[in-house]
Amino acid sequence: MNRPQAERRQRLLAELPASSVAVIAAGHEQTRSRDTEYPFRPNSDFWYLTAFPEPDALLILTKDAAGQSAELLLCRDKDVEKEVWQGRRFGPEQAEQQFGIAAASISEQQAQLVAAMKGKQQLWFCFGDDEALLSQLNACQQQIRTTPRQSELAPQQQCNLRPLLSELRLLKDAHEISLMQQAATISADAHKAAMQLCQPGMQEYQLEACILHHSAMQGARYPAYNAIVGGGENACILHYTENNAELCDGDLVLIDAGCEWQGYAADITRTFPVNGRFSTEQAALYQLVLDAQLAALAEIKPGSSFALATQACYRVLTEGLHRLGILQGELDALIEAEAAKPWMIHSLGHWLGLDVHDVGSYQPKGAVPEPGAKNRVFEPGMVLTVEPGLYIPKGCDTDPKWWGIGIRIEDDVLVTAEGHRNLTAAVPKTIAEIEALMAQDASDPGQGHGQFD
Amino acid sequence: MNRPQAERRQRLLAELPASSVAVIAAGHEQTRSRDTEYPFRPNSDFWYLTAFPEPDALLILTKDAAGQSAELLLCRDKDVEKEVWQGRRFGPEQAEQQFGIAAASISEQQAQLVAAMKGKQQLWFCFGDDEALLSQLNACQQQIRTTPRQSELAPQQQCNLRPLLSELRLLKDAHEISLMQQAATISADAHKAAMQLCQPGMQEYQLEACILHHSAMQGARYPAYNAIVGGGENACILHYTENNAELCDGDLVLIDAGCEWQGYAADITRTFPVNGRFSTEQAALYQLVLDAQLAALAEIKPGSSFALATQACYRVLTEGLHRLGILQGELDALIEAEAAKPWMIHSLGHWLGLDVHDVGSYQPKGAVPEPGAKNRVFEPGMVLTVEPGLYIPKGCDTDPKWWGIGIRIEDDVLVTAEGHRNLTAAVPKTIAEIEALMAQDASDPGQGHGQFD
Amino acid sequence: MNRPQAERRQRLLAELPASSVAVIAAGHEQTRSRDTEYPFRPNSDFWYLTAFPEPDALLILTKDAAGQSAELLLCRDKDVEKEVWQGRRFGPEQAEQQFGIAAASISEQQAQLVAAMKGKQQLWFCFGDDEALLSQLNACQQQIRTTPRQSELAPQQQCNLRPLLSELRLLKDAHEISLMQQAATISADAHKAAMQLCQPGMQEYQLEACILHHSAMQGARYPAYNAIVGGGENACILHYTENNAELCDGDLVLIDAGCEWQGYAADITRTFPVNGRFSTEQAALYQLVLDAQLAALAEIKPGSSFALATQACYRVLTEGLHRLGILQGELDALIEAEAAKPWMIHSLGHWLGLDVHDVGSYQPKGAVPEPGAKNRVFEPGMVLTVEPGLYIPKGCDTDPKWWGIGIRIEDDVLVTAEGHRNLTAAVPKTIAEIEALMAQDASDPGQGHGQFD
Amino acid sequence: MNRPQAERRQRLLAELPASSVAVIAAGHEQTRSRDTEYPFRPNSDFWYLTAFPEPDALLILTKDAAGQSAELLLCRDKDVEKEVWQGRRFGPEQAEQQFGIAAASISEQQAQLVAAMKGKQQLWFCFGDDEALLSQLNACQQQIRTTPRQSELAPQQQCNLRPLLSELRLLKDAHEISLMQQAATISADAHKAAMQLCQPGMQEYQLEACILHHSAMQGARYPAYNAIVGGGENACILHYTENNAELCDGDLVLIDAGCEWQGYAADITRTFPVNGRFSTEQAALYQLVLDAQLAALAEIKPGSSFALATQACYRVLTEGLHRLGILQGELDALIEAEAAKPWMIHSLGHWLGLDVHDVGSYQPKGAVPEPGAKNRVFEPGMVLTVEPGLYIPKGCDTDPKWWGIGIRIEDDVLVTAEGHRNLTAAVPKTIAEIEALMAQDASDPGQGHGQFD
Ligand SMILES: [Mn+2]
Ligand SMILES: [Mn+2]
Ligand SMILES: [Mn+2]
Ligand SMILES: [Mn+2]
Repeated sequence: MNRPQAERRQRLLAELPASSVAVIAAGHEQTRSRDTEYPFRPNSDFWYLTAFPEPDALLILTKDAAGQSAELLLCRDKDVEKEVWQGRRFGPEQAEQQFGIAAASISEQQAQLVAAMKGKQQLWFCFGDDEALLSQLNACQQQIRTTPRQSELAPQQQCNLRPLLSELRLLKDAHEISLMQQAATISADAHKAAMQLCQPGMQEYQLEACILHHSAMQGARYPAYNAIVGGGENACILHYTENNAELCDGDLVLIDAGCEWQGYAADITRTFPVNGRFSTEQAALYQLVLDAQLAALAEIKPGSSFALATQACYRVLTEGLHRLGILQGELDALIEAEAAKPWMIHSLGHWLGLDVHDVGSYQPKGAVPEPGAKNRVFEPGMVLTVEPGLYIPKGCDTDPKWWGIGIRIEDDVLVTAEGHRNLTAAVPKTIAEIEALMAQDASDPGQGHGQFD
Repeated sequence: MNRPQAERRQRLLAELPASSVAVIAAGHEQTRSRDTEYPFRPNSDFWYLTAFPEPDALLILTKDAAGQSAELLLCRDKDVEKEVWQGRRFGPEQAEQQFGIAAASISEQQAQLVAAMKGKQQLWFCFGDDEALLSQLNACQQQIRTTPRQSELAPQQQCNLRPLLSELRLLKDAHEISLMQQAATISADAHKAAMQLCQPGMQEYQLEACILHHSAMQGARYPAYNAIVGGGENACILHYTENNAELCDGDLVLIDAGCEWQGYAADITRTFPVNGRFSTEQAALYQLVLDAQLAALAEIKPGSSFALATQACYRVLTEGLHRLGILQGELDALIEAEAAKPWMIHSLGHWLGLDVHDVGSYQPKGAVPEPGAKNRVFEPGMVLTVEPGLYIPKGCDTDPKWWGIGIRIEDDVLVTAEGHRNLTAAVPKTIAEIEALMAQDASDPGQGHGQFD
Repeated sequence: MNRPQAERRQRLLAELPASSVAVIAAGHEQTRSRDTEYPFRPNSDFWYLTAFPEPDALLILTKDAAGQSAELLLCRDKDVEKEVWQGRRFGPEQAEQQFGIAAASISEQQAQLVAAMKGKQQLWFCFGDDEALLSQLNACQQQIRTTPRQSELAPQQQCNLRPLLSELRLLKDAHEISLMQQAATISADAHKAAMQLCQPGMQEYQLEACILHHSAMQGARYPAYNAIVGGGENACILHYTENNAELCDGDLVLIDAGCEWQGYAADITRTFPVNGRFSTEQAALYQLVLDAQLAALAEIKPGSSFALATQACYRVLTEGLHRLGILQGELDALIEAEAAKPWMIHSLGHWLGLDVHDVGSYQPKGAVPEPGAKNRVFEPGMVLTVEPGLYIPKGCDTDPKWWGIGIRIEDDVLVTAEGHRNLTAAVPKTIAEIEALMAQDASDPGQGHGQFD
Repeated sequence: MNRPQAERRQRLLAELPASSVAVIAAGHEQTRSRDTEYPFRPNSDFWYLTAFPEPDALLILTKDAAGQSAELLLCRDKDVEKEVWQGRRFGPEQAEQQFGIAAASISEQQAQLVAAMKGKQQLWFCFGDDEALLSQLNACQQQIRTTPRQSELAPQQQCNLRPLLSELRLLKDAHEISLMQQAATISADAHKAAMQLCQPGMQEYQLEACILHHSAMQGARYPAYNAIVGGGENACILHYTENNAELCDGDLVLIDAGCEWQGYAADITRTFPVNGRFSTEQAALYQLVLDAQLAALAEIKPGSSFALATQACYRVLTEGLHRLGILQGELDALIEAEAAKPWMIHSLGHWLGLDVHDVGSYQPKGAVPEPGAKNRVFEPGMVLTVEPGLYIPKGCDTDPKWWGIGIRIEDDVLVTAEGHRNLTAAVPKTIAEIEALMAQDASDPGQGHGQFD
């Protein structure tokens, strides 16, 4: 079997000690209002291990005392009448064929879980993720414990599957990398379309609509996260998602948006002038952020770390802010005192994968946890964002000419043996490139919706 | 104060008996994956009564033993640091000014709820809606009951607020009708754009993308429900939302989609030929559904009911199916035996409002509930859908020439003193109109994205 | 049918409005440690209405829209194997015969509750009593609400059964009065035996053992509450139940103990000298408490109230404390200022019945609750305790000669048409009677365990 | 520090791996009815490790990454006003002095638990014991996981403390053995008193009362389990606790009762003739059970096991039943087929200690669990019961002369280096001894309540 999901399950099973059972849940549909639901999005771990798209499913992986492993997918039964109303279901038989995992009906979940747990030493699941699953696992264990003479067959340990799964997911396999490149490519196209569409007088949500539309037309029906489109000072609110203000001539606009492709996230931020031309101050700060990003990107390679890349970024930022007079004093002392931090309060980047803020420890594997440390050494196969920014809200302690400027430049980067590959390099980010693209006629062939003509 | 929400709160308070407290919750953000959330959508009742858009808020309405009423909105506090990260918040003070309701901090919710309940005879909330709210209300009541000497101050009755609120929401006020017309208009435009865009070889999700985009460009950022775009036989699955098949030459495609505008839903279905031309069989069945819809629409007027409109619809459908040879036997006997029902298994329509399947009893106010009955007499101000259909899946017991055809035609209708107003009349539904629109060039001025040029 | 429980159910059903369902649970066995349980004690309301002694049972009373009522007892099934291990069970069939209530298996509880609730307007249960029952009732209602087309058949109101049941239980019927007299008689005998047994050097728990033994030998196997046996200063701790100190020559000992007979409580307190002779100070204070009790008892009659009896009691106490020099100042001012209250911080008495602190409002039926008020007018059939006390711990602000004295005298009193009947008059309470009884030889015939010789 | 509880905590801490936290809860008072509680009985594990007698307390044991251990007792604060009403409390300060454990207020439990857990690899508690504790521990872990940057400080494993504690409790230390001997001695005296008291016409509950009384007079206020007093056929119901039948001339009566002394259980069963004289059939069966018990007792020694003792017991029983004609066929085949099992369906005995069915595996330490196996090798310091029985209910397939006879003889036995010590040998069990004791005059000096004269 050469399905990537099957290989991932094998890798996970290889990590589990003998006499273990691991349970991963797909999750359930969530109500949006009354009898309507949000579009279902499977739990990332479940999706990673199965690619099975339906809600209400469970994956049970077991390894017995002799080290023999088994897999079981529990899913909804076929039900002709319900399917006419609610949509098609695979059912266990078809699921087994199509997804290559032994399958049974979710209606037997209590019995199947009890059978899988009985006599196993360790029960593995992701701690803290899913209260309903926890209740269910507790009920199953309690059933064993209260069955006469079987009490001692209940698992004696519960272990957090999170670190194991996070470690696996941290290093992307070839299949994942190709999907992530696709997510990045679609999102990059969408960002370019939004840049071209932008004009003073438009609404922030219209740029969001443009981005969503370009992605959806390619089959990326949902965003990886709620898009941020912030004109002017709105860019200084890091997770601004109202997107309901008018875009004004003379302001910058910051777009932080990425689509989800087959469950994988892209996460791109670009900042550009609403009217297509950077002002002097905008250009000065923008160039500074770009320089900082380039300095950080230079540090994305095997053996480096977020800590080192962050250092490089802050060095450039501090120098620039000092040069521009926003920071005053002795440069080395400013660097030492982390004086640039109030102007970029967020971190340089994060792991990227099935989740936009993807799982994976920021610290060395097996190290004693150290709150806040990001000294994990980069290895080929890791994917991360590099996203320095500068935010100067109105009223802050600078020359007012800088006020109301918020800038962030974010790319998605794969660590490779040679260094890194920028998955989102297709979106312009130099001042010249941006101004050139925005000067083009949006109805120009090859732009807009053209990709599906 | 002439805000419509204030008037609605007054109408609700007028319905509550003396010595009552009513609690309505806004709901909470829901996790989509890991640390990302679905876009927050306030609880419909809460939104109806407040127009306050933030999560984690509560509305408390009280009427004391003397009949004196009071209102209190509990909401999140201002928090400069959190707002930089998570977005702006009103805070109680600003909420009070802007929304015209006395407000306090949600951090005091336990104390405020206890204070509001103490000494009240009846506690009103929507039964079965919100488990977290129920727990909280129970905890508050238990706090009163276990306070020495105060036990008897806990409410002695819990009453379902649902019927009262449903009755209010069933009759739309002028403000609501204008919003619903806007939702309908935006959605109608979007349907027309999708019709024009459609071509064999496109994907179902691309028509969905088109619809969502047209709505979002007008500011309707979210659909009222997950769009159904079903080509060919997919149309026979009532809530088909995968939308991931190719649209084939010779097939029909059914689109059931509507946007949400200021919380209000539109709900439009149109069915049209992928290639722009109905085949003979498609045309025969389509005309039949359209005739049935027109017959039903003729019954939408004060004094009529869903029951009567459904009768009219089924009469036309049965006659037509009999005429086409799909139903065989004596016509009157077929009507009597409800022989058309297997071909249209869903009901004729539903209330429409803040929810796509809106609240409101389908039976006379105050009547003993009668499962399935829909004999509520129409009154001006009610809004409803009229959506007959015919579904002939492959393999069913008819001439194979009919197989794989699923048709539904749905409009949104306001009952008026004179009869009704069709809010979604702008989308073509005759065969001639549809074929004409689809023959137009999609790049024709005034179409496509032109509305924001 | 002339069973008293049947009559009580009828009285309760008569109080319920049409279209109601009431649910009363027996409760469950509670674990004492590991796999041992405390002796099961049925919920008082359930016992009052059924006299059915097993755990895990439910009583469902319904009144339909036409006012027709029905009763259903759900109980454990017969199970030969389990009964060999765990004890005999009635099973529904035998329960029906023996207890005169239609019965079915508790294994059908979800279905039976749903059936009973469906279409009823009001669901009645005791609010705040039983979290497990509440969950179950919520699940049943939710099942109805989420059954297609049945949503409106779920009850629209939940009403507190507590006030209705409390009102019924407040007025004891003839069967109850005879059982309460029996509880009082057994407990009175036990108190006399303890008085006779008492000697310096004994342990407090030995007097408790004596009381429990005398009751148990009469078939009253369990106390109505945990006995208080407090020598010397221990009497000043109101619910002292350690009972593990030595009884010292020269001290008083306070015994507050009563048995449970067929579910009904006795509640008697006597205070007497460990060595059989009151000291001067003990006698002075004892006589004062006794006078206060007699004054209060004189107020126990139809038309009076706890408020009036308390007034009489405090008047005597204040006069006495003033006379003894413990309270100083002007008598009327002391009374006005409730100056005696710090010396008797508890209230004069409480309702008595199936619970030692029995249910029943202390305020007029139907009045707006007034925290702390005890102005319910006495009626024939009410049973209550009258239990003034005085407590002078060491170190308090009095002449040290009074220190370490705690006294309470408590009788159980039935309000009759003529005034009252003291159910516990058989236990001596004058100084002379007590000293005489304690001077008798405990091995005297007719005492000790003689009752079963 | 030479307190036994301190040594036990040290032994437990020695078993815990580095970077562990263990939590043990005292439990809470449980409601008997309305506002009365059952007498509080601390959780056995908590009592074993602390001897702290109050409810609502927690013990937290930690071992950090360096192997440094710490102890913390959380208990109720002093509260003068509450203590007057509800009884005295130690409060942290006094608890620390008196019980020799660092103590703090239970009001800080969330913070103290979080602090103790943070950064620990493993969280240990007894799985399945205490749902409220589980919720609390989950809440604490979730608090850590959702604190920014601290997520990884939450324990990654939850481990069952039960096996560790059970193993410790299985081997009684000297302090425990002395307490268990005291429990056994008190209970033995009580059984003798009941034998002497017994006469035809008495009620079963009166023998129970006698047993409870004799124990309580010695300070053993509570039974270790609900006493079984079964006359005649009632003896065939293993956990018959109604105890409400008359004791009839000619019947046997079975008493299974034992007191609790300082938390430790005795568990004695004796069976004797109500009228003081065994009939021929009663004597034949009684002698058989006694012989079986003696055969089993001979196997209670280091190196043996329940399995071996059970074999010896069943061999004697089978031979005897064969001899008496109750079992027919070839003796060896009967033994092979376990033909005696239907006449003694329960097992031969169980561990005894703080719980009557005490904790401790019945299988070798560290072995893979094998349901039902009892092959744990006896070691000095183990305490167990040996309790063969024979039960011949009416209507079963034997000569009717045997009907209605139920017999069990149970002693409590300490395994010693030399073999065993019978802690309950003081209660007569030969036919001759029993008949002699029952022939004595119960008012004979030295009997009855004499022990406290
Ligand atoms: Mn990012
Ligand atoms: Mn519809
Ligand atoms: Mn009392
Ligand atoms: Mn035993």
